[in-house]
Parts: sequence; C-alpha cells; structure tokens
Amino acid sequence: MKSIFPLYFDTLNCSNGAHTQPWTFSVVRDQDTKEKVRQIIEEEEKINFEKRMGEKWVNDIKHGGTLLRNRNLSKCSTLIAVFKQVLLLRQKGEKRTHYYNEISISIAVGLMLAAIQNAGLVTCTTTPLNAGPRLRKLLGRESYEKILLLLPVGYAADNATVPDLQRKPLQDIMELHDHVVK
Amino acid sequence: MKSIFPLYFDTLNCSNGAHTQPWTFSVVRDQDTKEKVRQIIEEEEKINFEKRMGEKWVNDIKHGGTLLRNRNLSKCSTLIAVFKQVLLLRQKGEKRTHYYNEISISIAVGLMLAAIQNAGLVTCTTTPLNAGPRLRKLLGRESYEKILLLLPVGYAADNATVPDLQRKPLQDIMELHDHVVK
Repeated sequence: MKSIFPLYFDTLNCSNGAHTQPWTFSVVRDQDTKEKVRQIIEEEEKINFEKRMGEKWVNDIKHGGTLLRNRNLSKCSTLIAVFKQVLLLRQKGEKRTHYYNEISISIAVGLMLAAIQNAGLVTCTTTPLNAGPRLRKLLGRESYEKILLLLPVGYAADNATVPDLQRKPLQDIMELHDHVVK
Repeated sequence: MKSIFPLYFDTLNCSNGAHTQPWTFSVVRDQDTKEKVRQIIEEEEKINFEKRMGEKWVNDIKHGGTLLRNRNLSKCSTLIAVFKQVLLLRQKGEKRTHYYNEISISIAVGLMLAAIQNAGLVTCTTTPLNAGPRLRKLLGRESYEKILLLLPVGYAADNATVPDLQRKPLQDIMELHDHVVK
C-alpha cells in the first residue's frame, strides 16, 4: 500500500482555485468494499442503460465497452474514488466557497494519471454516473462531496488489451499564433 | 518553438468523455498578440474587481496577487489559451454532444502541467474571468469553444519567487479503506 502514497504528492502540490484544495481521495483496498463498489456501479449502470438515459447517450458511449469494464472493477488492487468538495462547511454552519472546484480536481487527476504511469501502474478514468449518493454513503463521505471519477489502479493483466482509438492529429487540437497580427 | 510540441502528445493520448477530445490549444508566440491578450485580461479583471464581483470574491482571491501576475503575461515566451469545446457543430448544423468536456480538458491540462515541468519549463494556471468572448474573437475560435485557462509558459525569471502556500496534510485529502467492512 505504501507504494501508492507518492502518487498523492503531485496532487498535493497541484494549483487550484483560490488554494482551496477541494478534493478527497478515497482509496479502497479491501476486497469486501471493492465488491460493494462494483455492485453499486453495476446496478446503477444497468438502470442508466435500460431506463434513465436516452438512446442517443447509449449509442454515443457503447463503443467504450463500459459494462464489461465494470465487471473487472473489483479485481484490481486499488480503487481510487475521487470526490470533489463543492464547498466546505465550517463550524457554526459557515460555508466556504470552492471556486473552480471541478476544474481544480480534474487537473489534479491529470497529474495523478502521470504519476500512476510513471510508477509503472495502469488505470483508466471511469465516471460512476448516478452512483454518487450510494458510493458517498458507502465510503462515509460528507454531503458536500460529490464523486467525480473512479480510478481502478493496478498492474495490467497479462492478457490486457486497450482499444485502438484514433486521435485527432496535432494540427486539429493546436493552433499557432506566431506572426505579427495587424 | 518546436520544443513545445512534445507537450501535446500526452494531451493527445489523454482519456476523455466518449473519446470526443473536446479541446483546442491556442499557442500564442508573437509579441503583438501576447500584448493584446494581456490588455484584454487587465481590462476585464479591473472591471471584475471594481464592479462585477462582490466583496467576498475579492477578499477570497486577493492573496494570490492576481493583478500583479497579469502585468507579466506578455513577458513570457508562450501563452497557451486552453479552449474547451462544449459541443461540436458538424456540417448541416448537426451537433455532437461533448460529454464531460470540462473534466476531460482539465485532466488533459494536468498531464500538460506534468509535461511542462518535465521539460524544465514553468507555468501557472490562470482563469481569465469574463475575458472569454474577447479572447475567443482575438484568437479566431468558434462560438462553441469557451476559454477555460490561460497558461503562461517559459523559463522562470532569475528573480522569480513563488508563494509559500501551506498544503493540507496527506491524511486530510486521502482516506484509506483497507479493512474488511462488515
């Protein structure tokens, strides 16, 4: 377990809105809790696909093999549940605003992804759609903490494969302004 | 300039919602455009502080020395304006939904921050509040692209200082579930 601590130091030093550090990382290692997380996500995702979400959404995301991936959630060594703190409740009910909390924590996750890869581990970013309230309760988080992402972390399986996604070419994502503009 | 291209390869490979890659990076290198960016941000920030935003906001962020920092924006070698694509307009007016676009691009920025640091360069994350429409027009971006962050990138000045911010201790951001839960 100690090997995963260094992953957090980049995150601790990540820039964030008004230096509020609006994040909590729940690190799940014991098998029983991992199974409960998987069960919650499977149940909610089944409802997402069959009832909650429209046909457009189902078609837009089905290429990702989401359901198949969830069944393996409890097989990885560590699950990191990433919670954003949308505000902070202080004593006497005073609220502290967390500016740009979603941007801040997502940037922190980007740094964490780099750290995970540098450590020789693998992960993927999953969004536990509509499973937030149950996961928050299971993991004992506060009402002002909302789950953003769930990262399964571990070593790749011997027979692991990754989708052969085509990326946009560099010129489609980067535009250079290097001339004198009149 | 070429030295900055490798920074984008991490971004190109970043995971994102439904593989939409909802980002455009405007890289500003010429001095004239950098001056125009700085001028827009200075003008809009003056209005933010004096008129638009309330006393609470001004007090919450004033420790960051924001105004002082903006004056140096045009001195750095490169400005990276990060635009999120909230959707994509295809031919015939068809719209493609970009799920989780803000989370996706913020994670990509996190990877980019790691790459910038690995390249021996420095940056900081700034949010050009209310300057979006003018920056979008200056840089010729589309109506469905919204500015998220502006990253000044370059080598640190010889006399550069950084604020001595206290970070939360590890136990305040990380919670470990490593026991069998009944």
